[in-house]
Amino acid sequence: MAKNEQFVSQIADIETDFPQWYTDVVLKTQLVDYGPVKGTMVIRPYGYAIWENIQKEMDARFKAAGVENAYFPLLIPMSFMTKEAEHVEGFAPEVAVVTHAGGEKLQEPLAVRPTSETIIGHMMGKWVESWRDLPLRMNQWCNVMRWEKTTRPFLRTSEFLWQEGHSVYATGEEAEQETLNMLHLYEDFAKKVLCMPVLTGRKTEKEKFAGAVATYGMEAMMHDGKSLQSGTTHYMGQNFAKAFNVQFTDKDGSLKYGYTMSYGASTRLIGAIIMTHGDGRGLVLPPPVAPVQVVIVPIAQKKEGVLEACKALETMLKQAGLRVRLDDSDNSPGWKFNEWEMKGVPVRIELGPRDIENGVMTVFRRDTCEKGELPLQNAAEAVKGLLAELSEALYKKAEKRMNERIVSANSLEELLEGVNGGNFVKAGWCGCRECEDRVKEYAQATARVMAKENTADQCVVCGKPSVHTVFFARAY
Amino acid sequence: MAKNEQFVSQIADIETDFPQWYTDVVLKTQLVDYGPVKGTMVIRPYGYAIWENIQKEMDARFKAAGVENAYFPLLIPMSFMTKEAEHVEGFAPEVAVVTHAGGEKLQEPLAVRPTSETIIGHMMGKWVESWRDLPLRMNQWCNVMRWEKTTRPFLRTSEFLWQEGHSVYATGEEAEQETLNMLHLYEDFAKKVLCMPVLTGRKTEKEKFAGAVATYGMEAMMHDGKSLQSGTTHYMGQNFAKAFNVQFTDKDGSLKYGYTMSYGASTRLIGAIIMTHGDGRGLVLPPPVAPVQVVIVPIAQKKEGVLEACKALETMLKQAGLRVRLDDSDNSPGWKFNEWEMKGVPVRIELGPRDIENGVMTVFRRDTCEKGELPLQNAAEAVKGLLAELSEALYKKAEKRMNERIVSANSLEELLEGVNGGNFVKAGWCGCRECEDRVKEYAQATARVMAKENTADQCVVCGKPSVHTVFFARAY
Repeated sequence: MAKNEQFVSQIADIETDFPQWYTDVVLKTQLVDYGPVKGTMVIRPYGYAIWENIQKEMDARFKAAGVENAYFPLLIPMSFMTKEAEHVEGFAPEVAVVTHAGGEKLQEPLAVRPTSETIIGHMMGKWVESWRDLPLRMNQWCNVMRWEKTTRPFLRTSEFLWQEGHSVYATGEEAEQETLNMLHLYEDFAKKVLCMPVLTGRKTEKEKFAGAVATYGMEAMMHDGKSLQSGTTHYMGQNFAKAFNVQFTDKDGSLKYGYTMSYGASTRLIGAIIMTHGDGRGLVLPPPVAPVQVVIVPIAQKKEGVLEACKALETMLKQAGLRVRLDDSDNSPGWKFNEWEMKGVPVRIELGPRDIENGVMTVFRRDTCEKGELPLQNAAEAVKGLLAELSEALYKKAEKRMNERIVSANSLEELLEGVNGGNFVKAGWCGCRECEDRVKEYAQATARVMAKENTADQCVVCGKPSVHTVFFARAY
Repeated sequence: MAKNEQFVSQIADIETDFPQWYTDVVLKTQLVDYGPVKGTMVIRPYGYAIWENIQKEMDARFKAAGVENAYFPLLIPMSFMTKEAEHVEGFAPEVAVVTHAGGEKLQEPLAVRPTSETIIGHMMGKWVESWRDLPLRMNQWCNVMRWEKTTRPFLRTSEFLWQEGHSVYATGEEAEQETLNMLHLYEDFAKKVLCMPVLTGRKTEKEKFAGAVATYGMEAMMHDGKSLQSGTTHYMGQNFAKAFNVQFTDKDGSLKYGYTMSYGASTRLIGAIIMTHGDGRGLVLPPPVAPVQVVIVPIAQKKEGVLEACKALETMLKQAGLRVRLDDSDNSPGWKFNEWEMKGVPVRIELGPRDIENGVMTVFRRDTCEKGELPLQNAAEAVKGLLAELSEALYKKAEKRMNERIVSANSLEELLEGVNGGNFVKAGWCGCRECEDRVKEYAQATARVMAKENTADQCVVCGKPSVHTVFFARAY
């Protein structure tokens, strides 16, 4: 195992230096690389394949919910950004601006979209005329740009890929309901596709989207106990409808403003997967999004019949709809084991002369790193069952960790102790901004989401009666 | 049919005012709308669904060919653009430039990618070390920006969506072969998926990609006889490899530059479909990319059993994998017929009480506008067969038109007469730039592609011996 250890030692220790572990893993598994412009990333094929699987699964859910895809322009007139007062305040500092094009200075500078509420609001204002046009529900998959000071691949980059859904409804109730429906869609997606438990709830005023009436968020606990915001949905009320004249003639003939909402999830989800499931050996990818679900490693591959048997198995598994890779490179089996373990392939099958003779295959599970044996006959069914079991186990393990690491606090000291210990801290809050700021200052923690019910007595800061029970945590 | 005529009259006449017909069709069928910034377009759900089908089909072909998807940054340092002399000359005049970001002036202005040879070349220079890393073959689906003076939805817009594939090989022979392979992939895609015949061949020096050694193009004949460039592949030799230090250690230990190639196809393909197959009633969409392949229109839909029968049919067709829409709106059948004909749905099924009683359905083919009757039993198989037949017929019809409209010319006068008549003109060419420019000046036609073999005796302009037989045409 000397070689194995040498290989693993290329990754920083996950327990003692998690930030370096993350950087090592994303670079060495070739998920991503740094782009030439500061803060940008190149998503390499192994990383992009995860994104494609995320897109495919999430897009199918949007379509099943009746949402249609469209594409809106990248460049937004700066004047649009300023039409919604809170919106411009929130996004202007992060905007990249095109001032010249076609060899000339532009009459009006153009923002590279940081998000598209404004330009989509403008188009909706053009399209919506009657109550018959409502609801109007669209989504786009695209790139967005937010100029950030501190960046990390997938977690915070100046450009990232995402989907942003935008809907307009005739009533506020419907728009609010859709805001919750989409939060639920994200939560279900995180659970079933990313095998990732999440906390969902409403955000505080301080943490909400610039221009929203209410923002809801989905927060996941990473390996180090910090929180990663993994998807948000926003109820806008009539803020954007009024700014962009999204008006419709209602059944009674009166002219009314619509109610809008939006929701987004991004390539951050790849970061969430890495930091939720990863371990000392590297990535552990959830089967539903793993680019390679099963890798076949031939043992003594030059012996007669071995490669043939491996290829036959590969074909059989592919025909069953699995994403399979047969590694018939010249590298040693040990090297291959390390490589694919670091790359997080959920299941490895080893097949050598003795296995073939006995009609079995050796099966390695990446999550538990345990080896077992399965019959070669009906291999596809058995492997599918194993992948489903593994997905379930990944979720359970992460859920157990999250549940164990949600602690309560009745004082700022306890709150600090809680987050220092890598926990989410559940605590009462009076609802005022000063107390929220004090938590940030004292414990470098922020309000991630508010619990659905207030179960605390007192504000963890000022001791006044609690109005909301809040999950505080340090966050990416 | 009064209503029908009234409806159709909303579209300009295809024969007498084709440009207006195009504009009417793309706007009224809600494929697209104009964006707020001059020259930009919004791709609406009905248009975007066509693009999704194009992507799905083309992406599967790339993957089958062993190409992997990735994503490279939108913003490219301006200094990259200038590293390949011809490249910057060709693209600099069209570039949109980000000069400010995050509230500050940038140290170096950044180009919004017009194409990504430079930034991908830079990354390949970082990734390629040994002959073992080659070939490296990647593709990305993304938005690009080229500031154009005159724009038209899908055909020429400041921002458009496309795929761009980029490969690096150890030898020029392999890179050139891949350039031809990808041209062939495009041609086969056009034929099978867009039902669109094309001419393929090498471009002249004047028409080639800025920075390429050789460009190959795929040209399609539109309804008005003009040509639409629908996909290009480029062999770069070592031009970009040298500019970006894409070097590898070969088997013999020597350090060598790689050879690169690229290929791209864009949302222009949607324009190509519209102008190849459309007719006086509006769109005629090829079944493989039509968002709705079959629309079911209930007749006397309030009569008992009609909607139920329509829904059962819808379910059955959907289960067979078809994209089906049941139009159970309150509009009259006549209104629905017009609507879906304009929207180009390949097959319409009308189902009324009498049909149901007789166990049949009335079937309307959008390409021939002929009605027929088919049994309701085994409807899915019958409709699938009809769609396949329709696809074949669309191709044959377009192929016949193209073949009939390729004429020869032995003089500039004949060439002018040919393109005035809406033809592609095949003529000899001596190979010099002056004669090519003269054709442009005299007949407003350009060299679309060169024929594989030179079969002409004399240059159509100067009368010197012909070196290349060229297809000249007016082009979009």
